[in-house]
Amino acid sequence: MWEYKTSVKWSGGEAADIRCDGKPTLDITPPPEFGGKKDRWSPEDMLVGAVESCVLLTVLYFVDKMKIGMTSYESEAVGRMERTANGLRFQGIDIVIRTVVQAEEDSEKMAKAVQQAEKFCPVSAAVECPVGVSVESTVASA
Amino acid sequence: MWEYKTSVKWSGGEAADIRCDGKPTLDITPPPEFGGKKDRWSPEDMLVGAVESCVLLTVLYFVDKMKIGMTSYESEAVGRMERTANGLRFQGIDIVIRTVVQAEEDSEKMAKAVQQAEKFCPVSAAVECPVGVSVESTVASA
Repeated sequence: MWEYKTSVKWSGGEAADIRCDGKPTLDITPPPEFGGKKDRWSPEDMLVGAVESCVLLTVLYFVDKMKIGMTSYESEAVGRMERTANGLRFQGIDIVIRTVVQAEEDSEKMAKAVQQAEKFCPVSAAVECPVGVSVESTVASA
Repeated sequence: MWEYKTSVKWSGGEAADIRCDGKPTLDITPPPEFGGKKDRWSPEDMLVGAVESCVLLTVLYFVDKMKIGMTSYESEAVGRMERTANGLRFQGIDIVIRTVVQAEEDSEKMAKAVQQAEKFCPVSAAVECPVGVSVESTVASA
């Protein structure tokens, strides 16, 4: 079993520090639409970023395992939240990945690596709303 | 509907930047037990921090609404991950809150505010594993 620990200290108003031992402290506010500041991470941003970065790291694991010639990886993620009868609820998180690979066969392998990552990414699996992942791979010109 | 967007750029090896428009960029690595660095946030840390900070902000909403005399709030969170037949899976996230309040009646109200926050926190609700929240309030000496 592994444990991940964070701590929060309220600093008055709607501001708070979130700490994780030995790592940069983050200032957190609500999203701007709920009275927070635009230049700080919100918990909603952190949730989307946690899923997106975990998908990357899980893809990297399969890229290595499947010996895929990948030279570049970028992704964009968007989480959608709506007001429901039960309060604010995330409806889904979608991640669009773009990679550059060395050969056509790497492109096919990459699609499989992303499918595996969708299945095995622990943060994505920890999220109740649907998480959609798509990948577009470009073969680098020789 | 509200949208929360992040983007990830792989920078080689097991390192990546995670960006959120106008906010500090975070360097992400796997947890140390999976080959990452101790001094950077991992996706697992971010997930736990997202839940913990969202619980705080939701509690603050109810503290204001219920006019609770709260003068201090700190919490500690721990997420537990285990290897299962389906891969690594979060088993639960537990948050222990300590507050200082002005009067005994605030202490009782605080317990209710935390119950409400557990119900309405959107990030906590987005997580599939059990999220446990407890609170201990101390009445400030006159």
